[in-house]
Amino acid sequence: MKLGMIGLGKMGGNMVRRLRRAGIEVVGYSPDEESRQQLADEVGMVPAPNVTGTVKRLTGPRIVWVMVPAGSATDKVIKELEGRLENGDIVIDGGNSSYKDTQRRGAMLAQSGIGLVDVGTSGGIWGLENGYCLMVGGEKNHVQQIEPILQALAPENGWLHVGPRGSGHYVKMIHNAIEYGMMQAYAEGFALLHGKKDYAFDTAAIAEVWRHGSVVRSWLLDLSAEILQKNGRLEGVGEVVSDSGEGRWAAAEAISQGVPAPVLSMALQMRFASQQEGSYSNRMLNVMRNAFGGHPIDPKKAGEGR
Amino acid sequence: MKLGMIGLGKMGGNMVRRLRRAGIEVVGYSPDEESRQQLADEVGMVPAPNVTGTVKRLTGPRIVWVMVPAGSATDKVIKELEGRLENGDIVIDGGNSSYKDTQRRGAMLAQSGIGLVDVGTSGGIWGLENGYCLMVGGEKNHVQQIEPILQALAPENGWLHVGPRGSGHYVKMIHNAIEYGMMQAYAEGFALLHGKKDYAFDTAAIAEVWRHGSVVRSWLLDLSAEILQKNGRLEGVGEVVSDSGEGRWAAAEAISQGVPAPVLSMALQMRFASQQEGSYSNRMLNVMRNAFGGHPIDPKKAGEGR
Repeated sequence: MKLGMIGLGKMGGNMVRRLRRAGIEVVGYSPDEESRQQLADEVGMVPAPNVTGTVKRLTGPRIVWVMVPAGSATDKVIKELEGRLENGDIVIDGGNSSYKDTQRRGAMLAQSGIGLVDVGTSGGIWGLENGYCLMVGGEKNHVQQIEPILQALAPENGWLHVGPRGSGHYVKMIHNAIEYGMMQAYAEGFALLHGKKDYAFDTAAIAEVWRHGSVVRSWLLDLSAEILQKNGRLEGVGEVVSDSGEGRWAAAEAISQGVPAPVLSMALQMRFASQQEGSYSNRMLNVMRNAFGGHPIDPKKAGEGR
Repeated sequence: MKLGMIGLGKMGGNMVRRLRRAGIEVVGYSPDEESRQQLADEVGMVPAPNVTGTVKRLTGPRIVWVMVPAGSATDKVIKELEGRLENGDIVIDGGNSSYKDTQRRGAMLAQSGIGLVDVGTSGGIWGLENGYCLMVGGEKNHVQQIEPILQALAPENGWLHVGPRGSGHYVKMIHNAIEYGMMQAYAEGFALLHGKKDYAFDTAAIAEVWRHGSVVRSWLLDLSAEILQKNGRLEGVGEVVSDSGEGRWAAAEAISQGVPAPVLSMALQMRFASQQEGSYSNRMLNVMRNAFGGHPIDPKKAGEGR
């Protein structure tokens, strides 16, 4: 089994390592020459100088895994591949693409007889060790062809063909939205422990004890316990929380379906709140409070100069 | 080691079983004679006819675990115990009491020299098999005296002395609020999978695959996968979701601290929404929509006759 890997970042690089461990040949490309050379030296990946070079080093039916940031970067790579691959070849998008983009790209590639399999990939930097949970969308015969790759990347029982093209990324979108909600629930709970000054709680010890027999035990709690053990005061940790797109699409999907998802949506909104510099809405509240109640406006607290 | 157990329901009964397995002698009382006799026959618990009878069958320093519903039932038992226990004895409240009630009861019992240890207890009906996660509040010397009991009930590393009297129930309150948030996050996510009719997802299979290597793996997900495997359409399952008090206290605690906890609070509010018959607020929305926009009022959909 042989495949091309476009993108050798935190995810793609570790996936190459895991694939090589399973004896799968990998031709890899990333604009960053250093990471190419690193993987060539470390696990015997065949480095390619560009997308075209990657395709040239494969034989039909060629299989190319794309592991680059969702959006325009993925579009660019898939368009390049469209011109270089042939009828019967398969592109796998393992990134966090919107399922609607995947539907569009799949229809485009299908015109040249090229398959697109979308693989929602969870596990983060821990995937190398634990395996990646893979949510796979696409045509049955395409999924069957790439099975050895999926088996190499996933832990036992850790991959599933969930439905037609796009459905893998749909399931990953929901997975990430649940992740947002769970993370926010833990974060709020630990803040209420930290905030109860009378009790001066050891949040690291509490996270640790919850891992043993409690209803809230989880892998995210395992990670949290480890983090808090090292840095219980979260020193040097900033307050702005990024979001990657999946949470936004899930909130939009709830709106599209007319199905309530207030917790998933609120977890996203709280990230937006953290991202704001000089909140216009908070300053608006201050001017209204001043206007009807004469409450003073503190320029500093109101975010002067922003 | 010997202790009295007041309350032999789903939690208390299984705790007696687990204590007996560890060789701890148990005198048990519940108003339900059948459950007393069942535990006497099954694991050799000494049945007592009432609270007084339980205390009489213990020797000093007497230790009595109270495992009855929070609120007035716990108040009643603790008042009875106050009149029957002596200086140096210890009462353990393993129920879901409000930490403020625990502070009040502890101060009351302390006047007679009786100790109160609050033990937030998680694990539900699975605790018998897995052990209970125990969050313990109280004075150090009291906690030391009951250590063999805590060790018998908890799994390895599954109990922690978190702080002074009341703090065990405080930590349990936060634990349960996190549980509400996590449950709501999963529930909303699965609803958005179920709602995507084009993909006709097998929610049970998706829950199962997420258990292997994904970021959202957890014990609640393990349970959910098992439930969905048996009844993926949730047939015969009602829509009203109860709440036990802990979620309300946590939401009030966030207000008291002035610390934002929108996800924990929203998860609670969604339970309230599920509990309503004939929502006054929804009907109010309907009359306003009608008043400004002429939108028709459907008496059935508006909850006529409620």
